[in-house]
Amino acid sequence: MTDLLLLPGDGIGPEVTAQARRVAEAVAPDLSIAEALFGGCSFDAHGTPLTDEVLAAARSARAVLMGAVGGPQWAGAPRDRRPEAGLLNLRAGMEVYANLRPALCFPALADASSLKRHLVEGLDFMIVRELTGGIYFGSPRFIEDLPGGGRRAVDTQVYTTAEIERVARVAFQLARGRRNLVHSAEKSNVMDSGLLWRQVVTDLHAREFPDVRLEHILADNAAMQIVRDPRQFDVMVTDNLFGDILSDAAAQLTGSLGMLPSAALGDAGRPGLYEPIHGSAPDIAGQGLANPLASILSLEMAFRWSLGRPETADRILAAVVRALDNGARTRDLGGDLTTVQMGDAVLVAL
Amino acid sequence: MTDLLLLPGDGIGPEVTAQARRVAEAVAPDLSIAEALFGGCSFDAHGTPLTDEVLAAARSARAVLMGAVGGPQWAGAPRDRRPEAGLLNLRAGMEVYANLRPALCFPALADASSLKRHLVEGLDFMIVRELTGGIYFGSPRFIEDLPGGGRRAVDTQVYTTAEIERVARVAFQLARGRRNLVHSAEKSNVMDSGLLWRQVVTDLHAREFPDVRLEHILADNAAMQIVRDPRQFDVMVTDNLFGDILSDAAAQLTGSLGMLPSAALGDAGRPGLYEPIHGSAPDIAGQGLANPLASILSLEMAFRWSLGRPETADRILAAVVRALDNGARTRDLGGDLTTVQMGDAVLVAL
Ligand SMILES: CC(C)[C@H](C(=O)O)[C@@H](O)C(=O)O
Ligand SMILES: CC(C)[C@H](C(=O)O)[C@@H](O)C(=O)O
Repeated sequence: MTDLLLLPGDGIGPEVTAQARRVAEAVAPDLSIAEALFGGCSFDAHGTPLTDEVLAAARSARAVLMGAVGGPQWAGAPRDRRPEAGLLNLRAGMEVYANLRPALCFPALADASSLKRHLVEGLDFMIVRELTGGIYFGSPRFIEDLPGGGRRAVDTQVYTTAEIERVARVAFQLARGRRNLVHSAEKSNVMDSGLLWRQVVTDLHAREFPDVRLEHILADNAAMQIVRDPRQFDVMVTDNLFGDILSDAAAQLTGSLGMLPSAALGDAGRPGLYEPIHGSAPDIAGQGLANPLASILSLEMAFRWSLGRPETADRILAAVVRALDNGARTRDLGGDLTTVQMGDAVLVAL
Repeated sequence: MTDLLLLPGDGIGPEVTAQARRVAEAVAPDLSIAEALFGGCSFDAHGTPLTDEVLAAARSARAVLMGAVGGPQWAGAPRDRRPEAGLLNLRAGMEVYANLRPALCFPALADASSLKRHLVEGLDFMIVRELTGGIYFGSPRFIEDLPGGGRRAVDTQVYTTAEIERVARVAFQLARGRRNLVHSAEKSNVMDSGLLWRQVVTDLHAREFPDVRLEHILADNAAMQIVRDPRQFDVMVTDNLFGDILSDAAAQLTGSLGMLPSAALGDAGRPGLYEPIHGSAPDIAGQGLANPLASILSLEMAFRWSLGRPETADRILAAVVRALDNGARTRDLGGDLTTVQMGDAVLVAL
């Protein structure tokens, strides 16, 4: 059985994942690690971004570490075979419905934020984004010709009680181990799915998590509050589309974009999917300039949430902090270390 | 015929609109002004937030100035008769499909932003949000019981070529009078409506606006870029839902939230709907604390875009700037002027 399946993917994905692999081999030499093609490179080799074999391997691994997918060379691929489609199919196929997207401000980097320092210092905010439902997956979806000329496009947002409940449960459980506060973001004032979202979260809270503080917030106001004063938040749970946008805004605020990992989790006992939140960055791919810390911290989350080795996770985290404290900086952090040198710095700190 | 229909609405709406009215009477004594109930107060009086008479009056006025609608007391009203539903019906009934939402940083207030000063100083960014289509209006939309227990909610995002074209045309035209740059934001990588959006904007650009620079940007990346470096943008056109979220984030960044107006425009010759972007702020309603400048600046936009009096608009704008330069500040700006005193300050500056 594979413990850790690596899907390096496209662009800077392979470079950063290679450093995470070095770290994994150093801290857990007994781990069985496999690697497979996914994304644009899989499309080039097999005509599809996600083959059945790779999906099966992902489902039977204990954790999957993804690099990044996509790039301009696949923009013209058929829609259902573009790298992004492969990513949606991987998420759905692995049933990883809860996407943990931390917005963390690393002390050494507080000045890199576009926000004033006092607003982001110490920020530790977790967005739990629903990942396998909503408008990305609902049907019908189509573009049709209209009789009188012109066309019409339709996408469908669908959420069931069960889908909302399971992701909200993850958020409440997380909050218990943190500052005990959950914000639930939707547009219940204008969307039926928002209305159901609010009701289901309210009921679940009363039934299973009365000890956690719950606040409802409209998604547009959430966007405002995230840029106004992000430290008011602890955990925010929201749907796939709002989560995509809000978590990207929150992450950008930290000034640590190249350093942020993410986890996508399913039911207990099922493998998690881990990936840096940065993209494939085609502009700097292959040049050894990418920061591997987001990938290394994604590995850290995998040890913590899927591989059952929290002490190993702690060791990795401490090593990253130490490397930063020692002044290790890739270009995105204003330094001149290469991807490999940053990997070295973490290995030395281990 | 009414030139200007005032819909003061709920919460702080009446207070701020009263100051805009004083300004209108001062700069254009010949203007015929009417006032009507709209929002929660209309629901209380007539059982609906928007009566047929008021919609007819709005459609036949030359411009409509709205205050704000909503408040906790109407949260329990039937969904189709809540203040927000009235607002959607007013927008649809007036056919104001292009919502101009400026994010402007007033020099006197640059330090009030949560962003570092050098990132927002001089910011003048306009989001053009599609306002009468998309997921707010698409059908089917419903919540249904599922056979096995639980429920299922559905909302539908629909866009036609014609809807996309007319709002994009407004954005391109605006850009010509500004810095000649349009960003079009969607999620064409995962949504069919995003794909159609991108195609229609691309075609329109090639056909009618080859002189304007057009950039396509994914909505999640737009959220990031807005908080990273908002001054890279001139005009951004996007759909109803993305526009709601992105424009709120952008507005908050300016530090001038209590000062930002908005316009919703339809076809040439049709009345526009003007409103402050702030909400009804029930917590400070009735206390004379609200900043009336957003309402006064919405009036300014009405003179410019619907009433055909650009010089009057210029006069109002100059008076607001002068009042601020003279140190006039309501509480949200760190001062202690009341709503009426801020109105006085603008009148004196006139
Ligand atoms: C690549 C894309 C499909 C994806 C998404 O929108 O989910 C990305 O933006 C993300 O946030 O992981
Ligand atoms: C009140 C609400 C329906 C409205 C919207 O979402 O359109 C508001 O948020 C806005 O942005 O004007």
